[in-house]
Amino acid sequence: MISTDICIIGAGPVGLFAVFEAGLLKMRCHVVDALTQVGGQLTEIYPQKPIYDIPGYPTITGEELIGQLMTQIAPFRPSFTLGERVEQVNRQAADTFLLTTSAGTVISAGVVVIAGGLGCFEPRKPSIPDLELYEGKGVTYSVRDPEAFRGRQVVIAGGGDSALDWTLVLAGIADKVTLVHRGNTFRGAPDTANRIQELANAGKLDLITRAHATHLTGEGRLERVGVSVYGGESLLIPADDFVPLFGLTPKLGPIAEWGLNMDKDAISVNTLDYSTSEKRIYAIGDINQYAGKLKLILCGFHEAALMARSAFQFIYPDQRINFKYTTVYGINAF
Amino acid sequence: MISTDICIIGAGPVGLFAVFEAGLLKMRCHVVDALTQVGGQLTEIYPQKPIYDIPGYPTITGEELIGQLMTQIAPFRPSFTLGERVEQVNRQAADTFLLTTSAGTVISAGVVVIAGGLGCFEPRKPSIPDLELYEGKGVTYSVRDPEAFRGRQVVIAGGGDSALDWTLVLAGIADKVTLVHRGNTFRGAPDTANRIQELANAGKLDLITRAHATHLTGEGRLERVGVSVYGGESLLIPADDFVPLFGLTPKLGPIAEWGLNMDKDAISVNTLDYSTSEKRIYAIGDINQYAGKLKLILCGFHEAALMARSAFQFIYPDQRINFKYTTVYGINAF
Ligand SMILES: Cc1cc2nc3c(=O)[nH]c(=O)nc-3n(C[C@H](O)[C@H](O)[C@H](O)COP(=O)(O)OP(=O)(O)OC[C@H]3O[C@@H](n4cnc5c(N)ncnc54)[C@H](O)[C@@H]3O)c2cc1C
Ligand SMILES: Cc1cc2nc3c(=O)[nH]c(=O)nc-3n(C[C@H](O)[C@H](O)[C@H](O)COP(=O)(O)OP(=O)(O)OC[C@H]3O[C@@H](n4cnc5c(N)ncnc54)[C@H](O)[C@@H]3O)c2cc1C
Repeated sequence: MISTDICIIGAGPVGLFAVFEAGLLKMRCHVVDALTQVGGQLTEIYPQKPIYDIPGYPTITGEELIGQLMTQIAPFRPSFTLGERVEQVNRQAADTFLLTTSAGTVISAGVVVIAGGLGCFEPRKPSIPDLELYEGKGVTYSVRDPEAFRGRQVVIAGGGDSALDWTLVLAGIADKVTLVHRGNTFRGAPDTANRIQELANAGKLDLITRAHATHLTGEGRLERVGVSVYGGESLLIPADDFVPLFGLTPKLGPIAEWGLNMDKDAISVNTLDYSTSEKRIYAIGDINQYAGKLKLILCGFHEAALMARSAFQFIYPDQRINFKYTTVYGINAF
Repeated sequence: MISTDICIIGAGPVGLFAVFEAGLLKMRCHVVDALTQVGGQLTEIYPQKPIYDIPGYPTITGEELIGQLMTQIAPFRPSFTLGERVEQVNRQAADTFLLTTSAGTVISAGVVVIAGGLGCFEPRKPSIPDLELYEGKGVTYSVRDPEAFRGRQVVIAGGGDSALDWTLVLAGIADKVTLVHRGNTFRGAPDTANRIQELANAGKLDLITRAHATHLTGEGRLERVGVSVYGGESLLIPADDFVPLFGLTPKLGPIAEWGLNMDKDAISVNTLDYSTSEKRIYAIGDINQYAGKLKLILCGFHEAALMARSAFQFIYPDQRINFKYTTVYGINAF
């Protein structure tokens, strides 16, 4: 069991900065994220795009900002559990929570900070009848272990980076790979798109552009993927596996079940300290809601600072905070 | 008369960032500061010191942060009136204010944003009896025009950068310069301190260390400065001018007279949008007060963002804000 002062759910920019504000007040943090990397929406959705409204940065990419935040919090040595979703938050005694993740990891903490953004990222599913019926029976939304596809017939759908990248990888492993794409140009990196075209020309993979998957058939298991090509033609492609790769989209997930006062898909908070309706549980960043709320990174930073001062009372009930400037006292003064 | 959408009082980090948030919503800003340079406390008090709690900057000096903010707001072409204090804010019609500065500059604006920090910086005065009686009659707290001291006998008090710098300048202009300093080492830059010592050794100025000014004499005008040297000796130095240079300290100043609801030395605001008790007047940054307020730069940034969305209703009463990310739409999308 992992034991910490504050368990932060979500390693987006706001969860990460919360480690810093907590650290200034000598509170240790453990951070859990369902994604396998830190950075939340910034690394998942727009790592290379410039952000213009981070104060003091005329421009900075999502990835750079997350890199800077990781450097900034490093002195406080946060620990991380990545690739696991927090499923349950249970109050034990009055002053402790036990959190349990999708992989069974258990974390004990005195304060819980939910920095869950828009929720957990889940695969964006194409609208194909019976798609969900075949999940686990040939339909999968990610390639965890490429070896699992050795010798098989695989249909991949999509035109972005992840569809192209996995097509290239699986072309060397699977018996046959078919890539079905709606457009006739690719949104992914040009290099990768060129290599796809070369492999297709060399007959190493089937490339079907201006087309989309329409239906699935098979007795108890996937056997064929129906594809409609724009202009008329319909194909029925033999397939052991169908892998639609249309990116990820956030879904609130288990947070909605934790008994907190909610306002639509967000957690209602008190703007005094961004506390939720449950004592010792805070919500900061995109996940919270209050009158005037702006879902901006810079607002989450402010919320993290106020949250940390408030959480301090629970972690160090006998102490008072002396307000100290980092410029004057450094980051280890408290 | 200067005419603008928003007149921002105070060019500290928060006033500057407010230009950015207003600019995103196509509102033009004019910024007034009593100091002759932008940056507020950061440039006036700690330009070279590292700040550690600006989100995304593991470390950045006060001067660097202000430089970055100036670059960030440049696309919105703010105009500035520097070296003038806003003395009056008068509501004209229901939708216009006229602001008047210490130098008589008049600014017309639809919205006023007070980002006045801890107030205006004023000279820190040594406690010497009758000091204020001689103000304008030989006692002055700054050197505006060094030529005004040509041929005169000047006593400077202080040991920091500005005392040392002006001593060097006036040594070449005045008839005689005496520097009185409490310590026997200097807080100013080592180079400058060395040059002071050289000039003193060469008889080009009088250096009296481990001493302080105790009293002033003169009939209607300053004639002599009494100095007590630690260890016993008392001196009476003939002087046309006495220039105590002990740095600046902020004083709230005229802001207290503008009829706003105050909480001690700060302006009470509504945390929904950081509006004051007067419609169309906002207060952000160190100058405001609300439950949980932290006088931190990062909090002022958040306040600026919420203020701008609220001010928009007054500048563009017929329009609605579409919330847009800078990453997706750039900074000129609204
Ligand atoms: C295209 C785009 C452009 C944008 N541009 C800007 C911009 O220019 N300026 C700006 O300020 N903002 C912008 N934003 C918004 C900005 O990305 C968000 O405000 C920011 O990411 C919020 O940070 P966060 O830390 O609150 O949440 P997120 O970044 O959403 O991170 C939340 C994390 O919590 C994790 N999580 C959720 N639930 C659980 C759970 N139960 N267990 C474990 N982990 C969980 C998620 O996996 C995720 O990694 C943009 C957003 C998008 C999509
Ligand atoms: C030594 C020191 C270290 C600090 N360290 C940190 C730190 O590590 N982290 C942190 O977040 N904060 C720190 N701070 C606090 C930080 O400097 C302030 O929070 C910040 O400066 C507030 O910005 P502001 O724009 O609200 O006001 P200010 O920077 O105070 O600027 C206000 C400006 O308004 C002007 N003004 C006032 N009244 C008028 C008027 N009537 N007319 C015209 N102009 C007027 C003033 O001249 C001034 O330039 C520190 C402060 C000090 C003194």
